[in-house]
Amino acid sequence: MIRVNEHYLKLKASYLFADIARRVAEWQSHNSGAKLIRMGIGDVTEPLPPACIEAFHHAVDEMAHRETFRGYGPEQGYAFLREAIAAHEFGSRGVSISSDEIFVSDSAKCDTGNLQEIFSDKITVAVPDPVYPAYVDSNVMAGRTGANENDRYNGLVYLESTEANGYFPALPKEPVDLIYLCFPNNPTGATATKEQLKVWVDYAKAHHAIILFDAAYVSFIRNPALPHTIYEIDGARDVAIEFRSFSKNAGFTGTRCAFTVVPKQLAAWDAHGHAHSVHAMWNRRHTTKFNGVSYPVQRAAAAIYTHAGAAQVRELTDFYLGNAKLIRATMERLGLHCVGGDNAPYIWVKTGGDSWQFFDRLLNEASVVCTPGAGFGRCGQGYVRISAFNSRANVEEALTRIEKVLAK
Amino acid sequence: MIRVNEHYLKLKASYLFADIARRVAEWQSHNSGAKLIRMGIGDVTEPLPPACIEAFHHAVDEMAHRETFRGYGPEQGYAFLREAIAAHEFGSRGVSISSDEIFVSDSAKCDTGNLQEIFSDKITVAVPDPVYPAYVDSNVMAGRTGANENDRYNGLVYLESTEANGYFPALPKEPVDLIYLCFPNNPTGATATKEQLKVWVDYAKAHHAIILFDAAYVSFIRNPALPHTIYEIDGARDVAIEFRSFSKNAGFTGTRCAFTVVPKQLAAWDAHGHAHSVHAMWNRRHTTKFNGVSYPVQRAAAAIYTHAGAAQVRELTDFYLGNAKLIRATMERLGLHCVGGDNAPYIWVKTGGDSWQFFDRLLNEASVVCTPGAGFGRCGQGYVRISAFNSRANVEEALTRIEKVLAK
Repeated sequence: MIRVNEHYLKLKASYLFADIARRVAEWQSHNSGAKLIRMGIGDVTEPLPPACIEAFHHAVDEMAHRETFRGYGPEQGYAFLREAIAAHEFGSRGVSISSDEIFVSDSAKCDTGNLQEIFSDKITVAVPDPVYPAYVDSNVMAGRTGANENDRYNGLVYLESTEANGYFPALPKEPVDLIYLCFPNNPTGATATKEQLKVWVDYAKAHHAIILFDAAYVSFIRNPALPHTIYEIDGARDVAIEFRSFSKNAGFTGTRCAFTVVPKQLAAWDAHGHAHSVHAMWNRRHTTKFNGVSYPVQRAAAAIYTHAGAAQVRELTDFYLGNAKLIRATMERLGLHCVGGDNAPYIWVKTGGDSWQFFDRLLNEASVVCTPGAGFGRCGQGYVRISAFNSRANVEEALTRIEKVLAK
Repeated sequence: MIRVNEHYLKLKASYLFADIARRVAEWQSHNSGAKLIRMGIGDVTEPLPPACIEAFHHAVDEMAHRETFRGYGPEQGYAFLREAIAAHEFGSRGVSISSDEIFVSDSAKCDTGNLQEIFSDKITVAVPDPVYPAYVDSNVMAGRTGANENDRYNGLVYLESTEANGYFPALPKEPVDLIYLCFPNNPTGATATKEQLKVWVDYAKAHHAIILFDAAYVSFIRNPALPHTIYEIDGARDVAIEFRSFSKNAGFTGTRCAFTVVPKQLAAWDAHGHAHSVHAMWNRRHTTKFNGVSYPVQRAAAAIYTHAGAAQVRELTDFYLGNAKLIRATMERLGLHCVGGDNAPYIWVKTGGDSWQFFDRLLNEASVVCTPGAGFGRCGQGYVRISAFNSRANVEEALTRIEKVLAK
């Protein structure tokens, strides 16, 4: 008799976006014709940069002719893309990452979800709170947790990010083996300094732990003192894996391209204390269960490293940061404490009280959708996330409406 | 201390293609200038159908404008593609598969590798011999096997496909829970009749087992009596998951699109004997660890279901089958027993003796590369796989050379 993976039965249904959709649908049934503005989504709204479109078309044309047609490519990505990434994302910042330490994939969500597979199911995992749900769910599926009680899984160590610690988590009291960190953060928009990250890198070295560093929002950093990759921190090459994506810088949410950096010196151990290469293990996993990113998509992604492409990406992220600045200024004018929005496309607004109550108020009185912070974990209660991914006109109209409601 | 998933340490390195590459490189160092013809690869050589190219370009243009831009799509695939698949691949054959039973993905390899995740690590798995390696490796990684001894993993049940059973495996003596089958077969090119598949469907129903049916080569079937989907077999909707791909019909090996069918009535059980929906569990896995296929790629794939696209795919598969016919005719004229090539792009040639010895002879005397059958499992010893994916000129030249060598 075929048996299920019973760890799946522990998964809490993801009520957050389903709940939002249900409340919005109900609202719409009573408010037909009213214009709803969605400030909750993490999806981009602006088209692909022209340089990407041009490279995309050119590569599609290559697929139309026998002489230039490409079949199976390297599962790890084509050299033209891996080399461009190594040079422009790392070399340009004085960080030494070689092209064969870069694994091109279709999604940072997939990579953050899949990477835990190469580690034992007996390790202790630390996740942020508030948290991006894929980190947690993939570990629940793999059997590293107990049941869910009061919105937390037994067996996971939660790293609280709160106003008290400036939205940067303190080291855990109990030893942990695998640590998820994300900066600029989703959902809070908070950033991390070199000194802050150094504390975690040192901890990981001392405890033989590994940091999974999600840097999907790095292109929104404008403060030159902030690190743009964890490998700017001394020692990080020994303990950190970094996840990147073309989704939020070049608008690839529907086009799909990302990459993961696994330095060659990273080690993990077996029961006999023998060290194994994490790079070799991930390479085995990646080549066995993945078949490479679509060739035209890789060409489109590589175009952001041309002179024109880089300028267009900068313009795109500047545009969203312009939205973010307006949002944060309005919220602060209304007397609400905020974090994020200056080096990130998200603004984390302290509303106090119940996140869902505030969500309902904005929906019912301003016809604006935000994301209730409680949906990202216990520390999100009393907050909402507002996204800067929108047209300027929508942002301005939404803010006018919000101001009218909250200034009452 | 971070510990590795020790099941990875049981994995036998995949020597097959590395070994081929090593021998070819050595040959080339002694034969510079000689023209090598590769008949070993499973990769396509002809460009994408014009209908796909046109749809691909059109969708890239949509990504260039705010009004038509697409961000995150449904993880399971866009309705336009799922509905076209349901109608053209299943409805047209009188098989009832609804569009929401279809999960679009980037790769059948990924899907066959990932699907085992939703089942217990305690189940017994049956795999063919000879076998496509991803079925086996993903189960080794998940801990469902013991060590590898003499090219077989302890704990797996091997379903032998040999000349004696017409390259169609008999039912196992011991009870099994998860069964991998592939028809038209890779590597043998053998096909399965409705009556043959019915035996397995009935077995699965009787034993509460599930069949993972890999039908990636279905578009090469020309015999109208052969089933084009396992769902043509009575009862298969209760016990079978089917994998399909656009790689070999429309040449998407470098473009990446595939799909998996999970009927809604499929069940698996927990330790208390409660039934769970396999569709719901796969949906949870797919939406948690996958983010959907690139929108322009989905548009390109959907174009094969237009009138022009269907004709172009037929022309493409006819072309490769023309190659296959030439290959099989030559091999049989040389007195070698063959299977495949009539409803599949692979010809499985009984060479006798050692697969690698025959490989070396073709390489050294004919400058032709084939794939040694022993690389696909113990039952592949004494066989080689010859692929029909090539230009006609290359096939003709290779066959002339082979004939000269083997007729000696």
